[in-house]
Amino acid sequence: MNILLAKSAGFCFGVKRATNMAFEATKHYRGMYSLGPIIHSPQLVKKLEEEGVKVMQRVEDIPAGAAVIVRSHGARAEELERIRARNLTVVDATCPFVKKAQDHAAKLSLEGYVLVVVGEEEHPEVQGIISYARQGAVFVVADRAQAEAIPPKGKIAIVAQTTQSFENLSQVVEVCLGKSQETRVFNTICDATSVRQDEARRLAEQSDLVLVIGGLNSANTTRLAQICQEIQRRTYHVETGGQIQPEWFQGVETVGVTAGASTPRWIIDEVISSVKRLEK
Amino acid sequence: MNILLAKSAGFCFGVKRATNMAFEATKHYRGMYSLGPIIHSPQLVKKLEEEGVKVMQRVEDIPAGAAVIVRSHGARAEELERIRARNLTVVDATCPFVKKAQDHAAKLSLEGYVLVVVGEEEHPEVQGIISYARQGAVFVVADRAQAEAIPPKGKIAIVAQTTQSFENLSQVVEVCLGKSQETRVFNTICDATSVRQDEARRLAEQSDLVLVIGGLNSANTTRLAQICQEIQRRTYHVETGGQIQPEWFQGVETVGVTAGASTPRWIIDEVISSVKRLEK
Repeated sequence: MNILLAKSAGFCFGVKRATNMAFEATKHYRGMYSLGPIIHSPQLVKKLEEEGVKVMQRVEDIPAGAAVIVRSHGARAEELERIRARNLTVVDATCPFVKKAQDHAAKLSLEGYVLVVVGEEEHPEVQGIISYARQGAVFVVADRAQAEAIPPKGKIAIVAQTTQSFENLSQVVEVCLGKSQETRVFNTICDATSVRQDEARRLAEQSDLVLVIGGLNSANTTRLAQICQEIQRRTYHVETGGQIQPEWFQGVETVGVTAGASTPRWIIDEVISSVKRLEK
Repeated sequence: MNILLAKSAGFCFGVKRATNMAFEATKHYRGMYSLGPIIHSPQLVKKLEEEGVKVMQRVEDIPAGAAVIVRSHGARAEELERIRARNLTVVDATCPFVKKAQDHAAKLSLEGYVLVVVGEEEHPEVQGIISYARQGAVFVVADRAQAEAIPPKGKIAIVAQTTQSFENLSQVVEVCLGKSQETRVFNTICDATSVRQDEARRLAEQSDLVLVIGGLNSANTTRLAQICQEIQRRTYHVETGGQIQPEWFQGVETVGVTAGASTPRWIIDEVISSVKRLEK
């Protein structure tokens, strides 16, 4: 079997940076905590736990004097304030692209814009972004239909969750254009997502079977699997090499492999080894 | 025959205002000039000429001490400066909606945006708007295809010629969104145009023949006639009642009448009288 590994498979810039910061920090601090899982990879979170990084959901549960890692999706403004109020040491691993969206939200809300965030309301990244808009109305819209429910406003500013599709942002912008005198858009989409998706499409076209590797709780990995599935029905979303079934590979000559933004390299390697072992 | 007259037929707010200002001014000033035709209606321009308002194309040709009317489409910033330098009296009949687009252009160019104007490059309104952008690059784009030729930029600001269609603006915005970090749009479209076009469509559906009245040099009247023609093939674009041909009306029961934004009411009345006279 030939194995085609997507160039864009695995960690994006922000995840790589957060992971490196976390491992680096374990060398300097004892008793470390992360506020929520640092990235959406159960395997990596477990590895960090072995290095002494405990995941906490609430600032109040973190012991005094400890160091806290802010995860790649960022934290809510109130959480950061509570962290500062408690004099905890902060290792801020917020993805710089997410940070930019947070900064825009803060500034635009001060400038009197109604803020529209294109994204998933419950996602920690979106929860973080909207927490920085301290004044005026804020709307989180998942798509064009939800944007249509926004009441007409004078000045609307729009930012996007970094993993949104350009098409979705564009459709929301169109709706807002018709509702306001001024529509100000910061395109905060990180193109790592679209680059990865485009490559996955090409990969699926060239393969008899596609393996998409990543946390089952990772939205971007699940979406990647959907995209491949539409082109190549023999697409499997796996978290580890142990989930691979030999019978999937009957008659397969070319295996395409890609992985979500939060999938560590060692897991990709492990899955590829499992595939190679099938031939022996 | 029934005659259905569109409610929105004729002068829009800006044209009505400019015309009133011009006639009012003739009571106060002798030796008046307008810089270009005040509106796109040869008949109204002729009437104003009879009241002593001469049309001039260049500021330099206007005699010292005279009063100058700035037409509804506005003037270029340099022209206004030359008018001021020559101490001419200014009657500024620029449509307030056009003025707003000019003001946005001036401010956005100072703030470092690349300015994109959606409109017809040669139109005096567009020529006026872009003259206010004193710094940085300016692009006039008629449609999506022209917008695609804009090189990628950090900050793009977009305004529209007031008579553009929302759909066209929206398509240009979509293209710019993909080219820039920030896209700031001022929706300077005046909805009088779309209201008039929507009503014309309904009118054409209800009529056996449509008369669209207005200057043959008026872009908005020509567009109105095209829209009606697509629905009712028996559509005629006329400037005056004298152009009406009795044979057009064979078998016609309902006549729809609409008119462009620069068509004076007395011309509409004159055309309707001509139609009624056919029945006698």
